[in-house]
Amino acid sequence: MTKNTFPTALDLPEVDPLPEATQKYFDVCSEKLGLVPNVLRAYAFNIDKLNAFAGLYNDLMLAESGLSKLEREMIAVAVSSVNRCYYCLVAHGQGVRELSGDPELGERLVMNYRTADLSARQRAMLDFAVKVTEASFRIEEADREALRATGFSEHDIWDIAAVAGFFNMTNRVASATAMEPNPEYHTRNR
Amino acid sequence: MTKNTFPTALDLPEVDPLPEATQKYFDVCSEKLGLVPNVLRAYAFNIDKLNAFAGLYNDLMLAESGLSKLEREMIAVAVSSVNRCYYCLVAHGQGVRELSGDPELGERLVMNYRTADLSARQRAMLDFAVKVTEASFRIEEADREALRATGFSEHDIWDIAAVAGFFNMTNRVASATAMEPNPEYHTRNR
Amino acid sequence: MTKNTFPTALDLPEVDPLPEATQKYFDVCSEKLGLVPNVLRAYAFNIDKLNAFAGLYNDLMLAESGLSKLEREMIAVAVSSVNRCYYCLVAHGQGVRELSGDPELGERLVMNYRTADLSARQRAMLDFAVKVTEASFRIEEADREALRATGFSEHDIWDIAAVAGFFNMTNRVASATAMEPNPEYHTRNR
Amino acid sequence: MTKNTFPTALDLPEVDPLPEATQKYFDVCSEKLGLVPNVLRAYAFNIDKLNAFAGLYNDLMLAESGLSKLEREMIAVAVSSVNRCYYCLVAHGQGVRELSGDPELGERLVMNYRTADLSARQRAMLDFAVKVTEASFRIEEADREALRATGFSEHDIWDIAAVAGFFNMTNRVASATAMEPNPEYHTRNR
Amino acid sequence: MTKNTFPTALDLPEVDPLPEATQKYFDVCSEKLGLVPNVLRAYAFNIDKLNAFAGLYNDLMLAESGLSKLEREMIAVAVSSVNRCYYCLVAHGQGVRELSGDPELGERLVMNYRTADLSARQRAMLDFAVKVTEASFRIEEADREALRATGFSEHDIWDIAAVAGFFNMTNRVASATAMEPNPEYHTRNR
Amino acid sequence: MTKNTFPTALDLPEVDPLPEATQKYFDVCSEKLGLVPNVLRAYAFNIDKLNAFAGLYNDLMLAESGLSKLEREMIAVAVSSVNRCYYCLVAHGQGVRELSGDPELGERLVMNYRTADLSARQRAMLDFAVKVTEASFRIEEADREALRATGFSEHDIWDIAAVAGFFNMTNRVASATAMEPNPEYHTRNR
Repeated sequence: MTKNTFPTALDLPEVDPLPEATQKYFDVCSEKLGLVPNVLRAYAFNIDKLNAFAGLYNDLMLAESGLSKLEREMIAVAVSSVNRCYYCLVAHGQGVRELSGDPELGERLVMNYRTADLSARQRAMLDFAVKVTEASFRIEEADREALRATGFSEHDIWDIAAVAGFFNMTNRVASATAMEPNPEYHTRNR
Repeated sequence: MTKNTFPTALDLPEVDPLPEATQKYFDVCSEKLGLVPNVLRAYAFNIDKLNAFAGLYNDLMLAESGLSKLEREMIAVAVSSVNRCYYCLVAHGQGVRELSGDPELGERLVMNYRTADLSARQRAMLDFAVKVTEASFRIEEADREALRATGFSEHDIWDIAAVAGFFNMTNRVASATAMEPNPEYHTRNR
Repeated sequence: MTKNTFPTALDLPEVDPLPEATQKYFDVCSEKLGLVPNVLRAYAFNIDKLNAFAGLYNDLMLAESGLSKLEREMIAVAVSSVNRCYYCLVAHGQGVRELSGDPELGERLVMNYRTADLSARQRAMLDFAVKVTEASFRIEEADREALRATGFSEHDIWDIAAVAGFFNMTNRVASATAMEPNPEYHTRNR
Repeated sequence: MTKNTFPTALDLPEVDPLPEATQKYFDVCSEKLGLVPNVLRAYAFNIDKLNAFAGLYNDLMLAESGLSKLEREMIAVAVSSVNRCYYCLVAHGQGVRELSGDPELGERLVMNYRTADLSARQRAMLDFAVKVTEASFRIEEADREALRATGFSEHDIWDIAAVAGFFNMTNRVASATAMEPNPEYHTRNR
Repeated sequence: MTKNTFPTALDLPEVDPLPEATQKYFDVCSEKLGLVPNVLRAYAFNIDKLNAFAGLYNDLMLAESGLSKLEREMIAVAVSSVNRCYYCLVAHGQGVRELSGDPELGERLVMNYRTADLSARQRAMLDFAVKVTEASFRIEEADREALRATGFSEHDIWDIAAVAGFFNMTNRVASATAMEPNPEYHTRNR
Repeated sequence: MTKNTFPTALDLPEVDPLPEATQKYFDVCSEKLGLVPNVLRAYAFNIDKLNAFAGLYNDLMLAESGLSKLEREMIAVAVSSVNRCYYCLVAHGQGVRELSGDPELGERLVMNYRTADLSARQRAMLDFAVKVTEASFRIEEADREALRATGFSEHDIWDIAAVAGFFNMTNRVASATAMEPNPEYHTRNR
């Protein structure tokens, strides 16, 4: 079916054949994740754009940070919930289910993170990320102080802002192009 | 004064000394722009993050595109106006003034792009970028069709979405960290 | 754990023992659904309130109507998504998955119904229900005409309004009392 | 005139003749209220729906409760004001005027309840009801604690939530169907 | 009671004695209206401010215009309804009841002007006034064209904008100072 | 070009010749400001309206007050920023630049006043003016107390409310008529 084989509403076919490095990257995805995320396929009409996107994504979500990988996925989902982004809620909702081992937590962050039983640290983190999403122009020093008060470092605050910012970008690219998530996410870690 | 010498409210000093490639990049900025944009200094506490950010920025704003560089700056300002991001309005407002040679146009996009005397193409472009910013979850095929109807290609639509998305990210990182623009922007191209 | 055994944040224990008719009703639920929905347990501190609620629910969701049971569940989820009601999204999201046999459809309605591939009829139905939810005071004759234009009868329009209205009630009762859904819903029909 | 004799914009005539019990109920209304509320006439196209609605209404507004009947009418009006529901503001605005003996109070709740000179208890009650109406997903334990702090019991909190929820339903059914209030309400208790 | 004898929450007593011209103006009000509107008493702490306010008010509401006095009162109420201004809804709601001889019309404009049975001209007029109130920055030539299409002249459009603008001012001054309307308005023209 | 020579989108030519007093007023403007503000030209189709407007403007912005002229211009810009009024942001942004001698301050108030380094007094003043603009119906005694707590008198609070109210009027008249600012403002005090 078209809907599942072509990842956006735009007629932008993948470079064919893919450059060797890209093909290798996609092969690693297939092996480790069991799929090539459609967002990567969507960008693959232009390898420079794919690399720039993937470079930023990998730094934010996978590099060393005071935030755990789960916490970064939690931000992804809480932000995507405000923006009602189908792609990111499906893909990163699965991420939270997998990394937390708690499927209900994934559902709570998709639907309304305020119902989740979070630590003060994680609640402050998501409150900041959600405020950044809803009304970034209202963020002031008091908001950063609330993060410091639950133990976040200056680096951590940067990372919260950067991850929240990133999903405000990718939510919009996904919604603007009607990007479709890989259907495999739905059944995993339920 | 602290406010102008340290670019955000976070205590994240630049790597010192900067790696040679970074120093060269900053030197090129100084030469060509007369300044090193504070956003780059803000990211320079971590060179991987700086490079990932700059890689994406340079692809979006400077690479080949069906959108002119001015048009990409126009999107930057219209998006930043919705988000009321001081850093980006100052920096990219100057960009519009410079690239258009029309200082009033810069002001109109900062204040209310609906007052600008735009071509149908550019109006459609900004309407899409602003809707993506205000309520991306409401974007549907009809919105993409409106872009196609004024002559935008599939690649162009991607680029509009990607640039609008990018400034929704960077507006939030800037506001979340109280990033301060270089004061030099204010007086230029008035 | 308290959270799963007591259905709301209010200390309102069930009538004990339950009246015979209520116990029978709960036994039927257990048999047919494999659970007694927590919303019924939540109301069981007062049998008159339970009966009044269940009476209205059963009429709206189970009685004869020009809307199929699936369509009524679709309205329930689209409305609950606007209101970000955890209880109703979990319970009725499962309902859509089960009645449609299409787990993705359930997810789409939870996250953003605009991404679902709906018939014109069902899209008009959900557009009306969502407008009723977001800004009922803006509904005018043109909105009802849009329903008639896709084939809905006067009875059907009443039912759409009534079901959308009902979930605007129950979403608010659930959120106001921190009502918790039965955990069994999560794993079903994935 | 059609507008006053037919209670909604939908062509759904009353069952004719009405069942005896319904006719008796309407006769009692006429005697005690001097009118049959149009909402009952509107539902009378289907007696099961009428009974389910009336059953819930009567339990919420007339049964024993820690909230006085006036307080329940106050919630009705404050909620209906947020939703700008003409039917409910007319009918329940009159209810507040009558039960309070204070016509100005009715007007204040219709227009802006914040201008009324309320007890701390009643102000907390309406603040909760209005927050439940505007953004139920933001209700948290602190909101319930604010009610307990002014003396409301667990039962009372349920009742506040249930009455506020109910009018969020009925406001929407009324606006969605253009339900017209009985004109007699306007002149009463001025 | 203080609330009715002192017209705002600010301790700003009237000039005492009032200048002769002001006293005469107030006497005329008493004779013709049966009261001195509290807004005039509120401004009477400074006669220059009173005169500047009254000068603008009288030009807008009483001078020659293509809009009838009733139409200007209708705009006043529709705007004040968006802003939920108690003072202006009470005072100008009475104005609509009196000038129209239709008490229900006054209530409809207070509660939700969309329920009123208006001419195309008056509906267009109120739609424009309400859009000017809710989001003036979204007004464009198409909005003015909609007024011209129902027969409004250039002068009339100015007057609609000016009256709508004026009540956006006075609503805010009234709410910001907790200005109380004369209680006499409530019972009139019911 | 039409756009710069005719100050609004409405075809309302100036009275010709202007009455002597008006011509003198315009001559004084030309001398002192180097221009006749377009808002005055826009009103000059009707000298009574011009005088009523100018009378109120001059009282609010130029008469004796506990607020400095700069502070009144600051309110003008902060309010106009919420309303995204091109005319007022251009004209009063220049006013802040000139009276403060701080061009950046003008830009900050146009873009997001929360980024400005304000005294507690001026921050409280702008917070009040912005709340009056965004949601005047939510203003309560606590908001006025916050002004008193930073030293504002009863007269000052009136003036803050009155200036904020005034720009909520004039922003709307300007946007509703597409009023164009004099281009000379752009280059001044940069």
